[in-house]
Amino acid sequence: MTTDFSHIKALVFDVFGTCVDFRGSIIKDCRAWGKAKGLRVNWSKFADAWRAGYRPAMDRVTRGELPWTKIDVLHRLILDDLLVQFKINDLTEAEKDHLNRVWHRLKPWPDTVKGLRRLKKRYIISTLSNGNTSLLVNMAKFGGLPWDCVLSAETFHHYKPDAEAYLGAADAFSVRPDQVMMVAAHKHDLFAAQKHGLKTAFVRRPHEHGRNSNKDLADEPSFTVNADDMVDLAAKLGC
Amino acid sequence: MTTDFSHIKALVFDVFGTCVDFRGSIIKDCRAWGKAKGLRVNWSKFADAWRAGYRPAMDRVTRGELPWTKIDVLHRLILDDLLVQFKINDLTEAEKDHLNRVWHRLKPWPDTVKGLRRLKKRYIISTLSNGNTSLLVNMAKFGGLPWDCVLSAETFHHYKPDAEAYLGAADAFSVRPDQVMMVAAHKHDLFAAQKHGLKTAFVRRPHEHGRNSNKDLADEPSFTVNADDMVDLAAKLGC
Repeated sequence: MTTDFSHIKALVFDVFGTCVDFRGSIIKDCRAWGKAKGLRVNWSKFADAWRAGYRPAMDRVTRGELPWTKIDVLHRLILDDLLVQFKINDLTEAEKDHLNRVWHRLKPWPDTVKGLRRLKKRYIISTLSNGNTSLLVNMAKFGGLPWDCVLSAETFHHYKPDAEAYLGAADAFSVRPDQVMMVAAHKHDLFAAQKHGLKTAFVRRPHEHGRNSNKDLADEPSFTVNADDMVDLAAKLGC
Repeated sequence: MTTDFSHIKALVFDVFGTCVDFRGSIIKDCRAWGKAKGLRVNWSKFADAWRAGYRPAMDRVTRGELPWTKIDVLHRLILDDLLVQFKINDLTEAEKDHLNRVWHRLKPWPDTVKGLRRLKKRYIISTLSNGNTSLLVNMAKFGGLPWDCVLSAETFHHYKPDAEAYLGAADAFSVRPDQVMMVAAHKHDLFAAQKHGLKTAFVRRPHEHGRNSNKDLADEPSFTVNADDMVDLAAKLGC
């Protein structure tokens, strides 16, 4: 069966985990930085703890306990706690800022840039990430991600899975929600996009949480496309 | 005298007239379209009249007479009047929409893409245009404009020269206003940017309004840079 994707105008991408390997990148970057400073830290646990603080921090914004706050600032709040917890002491403000900006220096998965370049020929390709605009722009320059547009939760002052993020993307491209396809490695993101009328593409990222995680990688029949990586997605979307 | 631009992180560009030749593009596109339809219209006057309606339409939004309205919609309101005025009758809705989207099909000035590619190596390059997001994204794909980010008045729901547009750009890139340089062919845009603390680059576009206009092309000493085109700007910014 061939599916007709001609009505789709824009692909919007989750970024952390879907396009870039945040865990591997943080571990590698921090390990090199820590080694130069003579620190002894379990950087895998550090990266996992940092990411674990991410959803609860955004939930505080979504519940209205915090005003609109960029991910850079939320990452820093979590980092300040982690520095105590992991006994990383006596950092200068510049060092803390450098560490916090590791999220701007995340590396694409090996297939990402190749797949995006193919998809860009036929579709508008844009981020739709909870990362803030400057983080996404810096990351794109760092990793060579060829976005046509950078949309962020910051654009709409609403974190995914709020409706405003998904519907805001369709409005930004002046198209109907079903002319936008959300691309993500996380089913919860796609179920939310689906609920608001977007098309959906699941991209399997088996190593997002390390080699031994038990992530759900099964095809989901209700998604428009299930793909093994970005190059497979490009092939399945006729690029 | 060499000026140090190392503190500048992002260049934000006016687009209509500064990066693309809207008048020449509209005349050429509409003339070819009109010829195929057997229409006799003075397309130069038509293009000038369309552009003349632009500022008054935005001013209605700025004064609060209209709620936030995208340029595509404002262009269409003006177009509907022009079709009566220029006696262009019996168009289908699809034809009117095609005509209105000529603003998505504007061609870059000959130096624009070359200059932007050079500037992109050292700086974040972004639009900061009153054009809406989808217009800017479609235009970038049409003309090969290599933006790192697409910021629009639509991003901030404020048309330039409102402060929110200029300060919003600095906030989006998480930098101070003086770390952003506004690039424009229009001095009023640059004076507004300057007032809100941004650096400024004037790019001369002598033919923006045709060959016989008396546009002010003189260097303005209060601007950070005055340049002859985008390639000259790249050279002057050390790229």
